[in-house]
Amino acid sequence: MRHTFYRESLALFTDLYELTMAYGYWKMGMLEQEAVFHLTFRKWPFKGGYAIAAGLQTLVDVLLDFHFEPSDISYLQSLKDSQNKPLFEKPFLEYLERLSFSCDIDALPEGSLVFPYEPLIRIKGPILEAQIVESVVLNIINFQTLIATKAARVCQAAGEDVVVEFGMRRAQGIDGAISASRASFIGGCESTSHVLAGKLFDIPLKGTQAHSWIMAFENELEAFEAFAEAMPHQCVFLIDTYDTLQGARNAVRIADRLQGDDFVFLGVRLDSGDLAYLSIEVRKILDEAGYTKARIMASNELDEYLIRDLKQQGAAITIWGVGTNLVTGKDQPALDGVYKLTAIKNKQGLWEDKIKISEQTAKVTIPGFLQVRRFFHEGHLVGDVIFDDRSQPSGAIEMVGIADENDRRFMQPDTSYRDLLIPIFRKGKLCSELPSLRQIQQKAKKELELLPSSMKRFLNPQVYFVGLERQVHDKRLRLIEKMRRR
Amino acid sequence: MRHTFYRESLALFTDLYELTMAYGYWKMGMLEQEAVFHLTFRKWPFKGGYAIAAGLQTLVDVLLDFHFEPSDISYLQSLKDSQNKPLFEKPFLEYLERLSFSCDIDALPEGSLVFPYEPLIRIKGPILEAQIVESVVLNIINFQTLIATKAARVCQAAGEDVVVEFGMRRAQGIDGAISASRASFIGGCESTSHVLAGKLFDIPLKGTQAHSWIMAFENELEAFEAFAEAMPHQCVFLIDTYDTLQGARNAVRIADRLQGDDFVFLGVRLDSGDLAYLSIEVRKILDEAGYTKARIMASNELDEYLIRDLKQQGAAITIWGVGTNLVTGKDQPALDGVYKLTAIKNKQGLWEDKIKISEQTAKVTIPGFLQVRRFFHEGHLVGDVIFDDRSQPSGAIEMVGIADENDRRFMQPDTSYRDLLIPIFRKGKLCSELPSLRQIQQKAKKELELLPSSMKRFLNPQVYFVGLERQVHDKRLRLIEKMRRR
Repeated sequence: MRHTFYRESLALFTDLYELTMAYGYWKMGMLEQEAVFHLTFRKWPFKGGYAIAAGLQTLVDVLLDFHFEPSDISYLQSLKDSQNKPLFEKPFLEYLERLSFSCDIDALPEGSLVFPYEPLIRIKGPILEAQIVESVVLNIINFQTLIATKAARVCQAAGEDVVVEFGMRRAQGIDGAISASRASFIGGCESTSHVLAGKLFDIPLKGTQAHSWIMAFENELEAFEAFAEAMPHQCVFLIDTYDTLQGARNAVRIADRLQGDDFVFLGVRLDSGDLAYLSIEVRKILDEAGYTKARIMASNELDEYLIRDLKQQGAAITIWGVGTNLVTGKDQPALDGVYKLTAIKNKQGLWEDKIKISEQTAKVTIPGFLQVRRFFHEGHLVGDVIFDDRSQPSGAIEMVGIADENDRRFMQPDTSYRDLLIPIFRKGKLCSELPSLRQIQQKAKKELELLPSSMKRFLNPQVYFVGLERQVHDKRLRLIEKMRRR
Repeated sequence: MRHTFYRESLALFTDLYELTMAYGYWKMGMLEQEAVFHLTFRKWPFKGGYAIAAGLQTLVDVLLDFHFEPSDISYLQSLKDSQNKPLFEKPFLEYLERLSFSCDIDALPEGSLVFPYEPLIRIKGPILEAQIVESVVLNIINFQTLIATKAARVCQAAGEDVVVEFGMRRAQGIDGAISASRASFIGGCESTSHVLAGKLFDIPLKGTQAHSWIMAFENELEAFEAFAEAMPHQCVFLIDTYDTLQGARNAVRIADRLQGDDFVFLGVRLDSGDLAYLSIEVRKILDEAGYTKARIMASNELDEYLIRDLKQQGAAITIWGVGTNLVTGKDQPALDGVYKLTAIKNKQGLWEDKIKISEQTAKVTIPGFLQVRRFFHEGHLVGDVIFDDRSQPSGAIEMVGIADENDRRFMQPDTSYRDLLIPIFRKGKLCSELPSLRQIQQKAKKELELLPSSMKRFLNPQVYFVGLERQVHDKRLRLIEKMRRR
């Protein structure tokens, strides 16, 4: 048995119903019928005021290589239905074996600010293909967007300090760690402890020694000295194995002893205890010994709230190692993204808008070919409108609040704006040069700077305005009415 | 850029400090010094009374293939220290390139009940190797153990009903989904929606159609009929796209129409709304039409608490589709497992026990070569004792409660028992035949049956007794005292 990381294709990384529906479309001769799907989420992650889009590059990598391997086909051929007959007919499997992904994709670039109800991804193409990728699209975009957002919050709490992502040991599986390291970097982390993520994504690495290193020697002094001898330029001493303040004094003793040699005392790390009190006392010890440039790093179940509290208490920490709570998005371990059909071409070749109704209006989908326009005023974001890409708005734009229908606003024609979804695939071919991870990180940083700080509060932030363009709103209402009348 | 699932080796799936420490041991000539590490966790997951060990097979797969690829070595060679000099010397990297894993591993079989402070994995061997695998060991065992435990709780709530794992679209990355499907099956799920997990692990698959299928047709009746035509033996109709009760009546109409044909009406699925009320009403519609065998499946943000509540309200659901809250372990998305050095061979060739002290005694590690003995009485579990494998206890065993030192118990010599950690690797070679996933699932089920139901309550369960064998306890106290005296 081999695990996924040995595989070449992820076509089977999907829910069975994508394949049974694909089979249904194939059987009904509908496989080529064109359709449009959108990925959106509904809940503000972590009860905050924004999210950072992430995961597109990973998705592109998967889709560029989308194909069923012979062993996938054999597996599908072995599946049985409730009457112990083959679940799929052989010609369908032969069709799958030849299938490659040929849809159009428009997407929000990674690092963009994104808000509930806005499409992050739009996929248009043969319904069989646009449907079959649903699960993998959701898996990748939901998770990386969640973690990029969490990282942005953590980095916001840390302000000018450095945040290092430390999470792989408690991440949710191997890719839970790899994708989290990538998304954390997008959200603003300076580096990671995770070597494979460093290799794959060119993220800077940080890391020195664990308690076990200290314990492997007769005493702490010996352990520090041995480390300094082995890696004289990398000395961040872990000082809490036995007694943190004594540990700080031992670090100073070694630094004193090696001064003048080819030795650089970068700092110390605390991993337990009262981080506010201990960091202040350790700072005194370092400063009194003249090591004012040696930095104090801290780790231990940190998150944005703890970092903010520690800073308010005057903690002398300037490097924050954040692990579990960051890479698992602890207080909300999943983004509630959904992937919904919003239009389909009928047999007459005309596009029909589609809607999924629900008892709660907020859960009703938005029909059409959606695009998002973001408005700017004097260097700040002022609001977004979701409109139909087939009828570009001109003149003043009337917007109906998505969260509150009674919140109606007009945007004057001279307001500056940017349309957010950009073409990524055309007929299955990549048509856009994707930015590097560092560029994505820079983009996220700049976008966050444009968002008013009242909207970046951790709890109860001011709500960023997202509206439906008036025509889309009216069409949605008509479709709801039509559906309910049935 | 390629993602991890294209790779052959996971040697770089590690924290940088494992490599800097390895480099340190290599530089100090300590790389061959033997050491023992243990993986344990401290907090009861989900505030419950048990955990189910999982992930060993995945870990074995990774370790059997443990090696650095040339591209890994090139990457490590490119890393720079704070003075912009190479972080690692070339001879060390050449050493890594030749390195294969040669340690001994003893482990709790997958599917075993496990409790806080008990070792799940024990690794003994050259300190460089035993240390370097820390991060990957933790990542795999922490996550799968967490999810197997969550699944056991969900399945416990469902009782005799079927639980289907539905989580991949909101799992934490690709392996977050794959490992979660595997662990969920261990914990008792009957099947998964996740096709790749089905292929990799031979887990039965479930899935029929999404709302988009229903919306792709003119109306619900057409959609049901088309599906029945394509897959007459797989008909579980999704009935909540427009109006759930009307959906149930439409399902019945199609079933009536196709009766006598090669058609099997398996049931219906609800995915929104008041699942208690709706399932009861839908049951009436199905029963009145004579479809007493058609089953009702439900999904929508379910967890063990919601399933229990719905059953208490008389919900007529017998198949539960559980996704996000299961595969992310929503209320506790990480197990707090740690991997600690507990003994090291000194230069004289004698083993020295090691301890990591902490301000909280509960966080102090347990020194030695640990083994767990589980005692049985009249078909029930009565308690576990952690002892040192180098001095097998004989006669009556005195045990000191790990959670409460004043809780001292004696186990009579004639009590039946089993020692839990079994040899998995000897000198890097697999020495044990690992069970199939179905056997592991069976084991978990049987073990849970042996645990008193008061210990399986979701909240505030009775605490299962885990003690330290008296000598281990005394040795631990002596070492704490020695450390604090320094």
